[in-house]
Amino acid sequence: MVYVIRKEHFNAAHRLFNPAWSEEKNQEVFGLCANNNWHGHNFELIVTVKGKPDVDTGFVFDLKQLGDIIKKEIIDKVDHKNLNLDVPYLTGILPSTENLIIKIWEILEAPIAEAGGTLAKLRLEETENNFVEYFG
Amino acid sequence: MVYVIRKEHFNAAHRLFNPAWSEEKNQEVFGLCANNNWHGHNFELIVTVKGKPDVDTGFVFDLKQLGDIIKKEIIDKVDHKNLNLDVPYLTGILPSTENLIIKIWEILEAPIAEAGGTLAKLRLEETENNFVEYFG
Amino acid sequence: MVYVIRKEHFNAAHRLFNPAWSEEKNQEVFGLCANNNWHGHNFELIVTVKGKPDVDTGFVFDLKQLGDIIKKEIIDKVDHKNLNLDVPYLTGILPSTENLIIKIWEILEAPIAEAGGTLAKLRLEETENNFVEYFG
Amino acid sequence: MVYVIRKEHFNAAHRLFNPAWSEEKNQEVFGLCANNNWHGHNFELIVTVKGKPDVDTGFVFDLKQLGDIIKKEIIDKVDHKNLNLDVPYLTGILPSTENLIIKIWEILEAPIAEAGGTLAKLRLEETENNFVEYFG
Amino acid sequence: MVYVIRKEHFNAAHRLFNPAWSEEKNQEVFGLCANNNWHGHNFELIVTVKGKPDVDTGFVFDLKQLGDIIKKEIIDKVDHKNLNLDVPYLTGILPSTENLIIKIWEILEAPIAEAGGTLAKLRLEETENNFVEYFG
Amino acid sequence: MVYVIRKEHFNAAHRLFNPAWSEEKNQEVFGLCANNNWHGHNFELIVTVKGKPDVDTGFVFDLKQLGDIIKKEIIDKVDHKNLNLDVPYLTGILPSTENLIIKIWEILEAPIAEAGGTLAKLRLEETENNFVEYFG
Repeated sequence: MVYVIRKEHFNAAHRLFNPAWSEEKNQEVFGLCANNNWHGHNFELIVTVKGKPDVDTGFVFDLKQLGDIIKKEIIDKVDHKNLNLDVPYLTGILPSTENLIIKIWEILEAPIAEAGGTLAKLRLEETENNFVEYFG
Repeated sequence: MVYVIRKEHFNAAHRLFNPAWSEEKNQEVFGLCANNNWHGHNFELIVTVKGKPDVDTGFVFDLKQLGDIIKKEIIDKVDHKNLNLDVPYLTGILPSTENLIIKIWEILEAPIAEAGGTLAKLRLEETENNFVEYFG
Repeated sequence: MVYVIRKEHFNAAHRLFNPAWSEEKNQEVFGLCANNNWHGHNFELIVTVKGKPDVDTGFVFDLKQLGDIIKKEIIDKVDHKNLNLDVPYLTGILPSTENLIIKIWEILEAPIAEAGGTLAKLRLEETENNFVEYFG
Repeated sequence: MVYVIRKEHFNAAHRLFNPAWSEEKNQEVFGLCANNNWHGHNFELIVTVKGKPDVDTGFVFDLKQLGDIIKKEIIDKVDHKNLNLDVPYLTGILPSTENLIIKIWEILEAPIAEAGGTLAKLRLEETENNFVEYFG
Repeated sequence: MVYVIRKEHFNAAHRLFNPAWSEEKNQEVFGLCANNNWHGHNFELIVTVKGKPDVDTGFVFDLKQLGDIIKKEIIDKVDHKNLNLDVPYLTGILPSTENLIIKIWEILEAPIAEAGGTLAKLRLEETENNFVEYFG
Repeated sequence: MVYVIRKEHFNAAHRLFNPAWSEEKNQEVFGLCANNNWHGHNFELIVTVKGKPDVDTGFVFDLKQLGDIIKKEIIDKVDHKNLNLDVPYLTGILPSTENLIIKIWEILEAPIAEAGGTLAKLRLEETENNFVEYFG
């Protein structure tokens, strides 16, 4: 089993805010991240697909094709967007990196499988010091 | 003359939008960057101060003190904020990185001078591929 | 299960030296790393905590809080210190990165558990080419 | 069990090309990567060895020695070379990163074992966005 | 005057070889870099344009447009190519990074000027430790 | 004029301490950096040499030769050393990065000139956020 990995980027605004809570409770729990007028990040999304290298191509999965799937399914819908307001598949979801990475897994799993691959791991980097990883 | 350099970070939302223009003109000129609901970045701010090393300390300028000035004057006012809406000293300014870096120079020059230093260069990194520099 | 990750830094002096050995044996085994007057590094400490995202916050573990625990328990005691001389919990321990990472695990496991998290992985980077990882 | 990790580099030319296929089929599958006159990369090779720290040295495996093994067995034979033409142990192998990493595992496993270590993981980085990992 | 900067990448094969010299002289002067069957790199090209920010856009030069010019004029002709064999504008030129950066300046200066900008600096990174810069 | 640049590394211990001052004054001015038992860093030294590319080699200055000069003159004398105690050419000098970079310039200028080059710039990186630059 070999793991192939592709990194893509997106720039987005968001805020951490639970609408069931008061403004004060949100400030208390989320601090600066709850800022009313949003803030934003350069997100790095790192996608791992596992499999056996094809005898004819030497590829587990064509990384250019993997990049195209990630761009079509994820990047084009979140890049230069507001994660709380602009992204249909995030409606009603508090856009913590934890919730984001689970949602991204749900979206990427099927198209990667249809293209013959097996999604193995996701990593999402929000700042230079804060990251999340998910294995499904 | 020796140049000492300090890097600080902030995460902010913004949009490129000229209110004197129609929505269409803004979309045409700024593309995704004009998104109505904002987008955001992890900004890196790199500040250079020049001078002669002090005989007693070996310092041109205490980099911890430089970090404190940058945090007090700039970072605390832009970090986890919306550059179009939340920052008094950016009111009425289109928050391109070019306009940001000129404004940051205007703000930092005096407190660095008061502390005995000479601001020599600013660098602002917006994405992994896009940067601006300013020498006053 | 989602994994959340926080990176922190410290700068420290150390030397690799086994007091049960002669000076010559230490030089032979540890080479430059045994230098009598120490040498030092910028260490990067990367801490992974695993869990299920909380329904109300979207957090597995608040990464600001994780940063505070790492700073209180580890960074404040090793940053700008000598790992052989200045750190009570390293007394009598040869400060190789392997021994360091095991000790850091022992120290971090309980306070992270008390705060409701499960320590899953540590990574310690000593130079740009040398790293260690530990899973408990 | 502690994992120790060493990073090394090499610069090489290669092309992705299946000699059983027509020129057209190669272009169609491999695109620019099939360029007749080769292209090249700065490869990063990251090798993980696992074990228990030695009581006397605090080492799982001396990382300088690990670097020497990687240089002797791998780097010296691929650095500033053409992976399709110049490397005996790659003869007849399509030099995709997947095939490369499997071959590197086969070569490194024995000398690391002879030196008392257990190879645990390889990572090979071909560009800033494309990587592979292998666990044997 | 504000300086705006754009980074782009290309992967290419090359060799350092002076056809007026014997094979032995080439080996003596260029060492591994003269390898008959080429080697290669991930090059980073960093382009600086200077000017005054436009009052309406806040731009010195649209960095997306700058990226498009760099891609059309440089990247599309060198990416996944052999710098000695495949690039018309490098014919007869020994492809050292010094010679490359001068040639890239000659090519980029006019289209950037036609688009209203002033090329101010180029930086070309060949490996993680070797770089060149050129100011025209 | 083309500028060629070489990056080298060293790991060293040091402390900021003025022997003419009391312990208290040193703590007050230098804080953690005055720690009695030292601390340390992974330093990055970046050396720029300027000149015209040679017609036969395409080189301003052979970067491998530049690396060798830097290693012989600087790295071999500071790597895995204590900058306050172990380095003859730093005797009596408070090892701030400012004082270090001036001393490194004095040492490198002559051997680079003898080898036909002109030292143009030095950059010394002490932590991920603190750097100094010197132009002679």
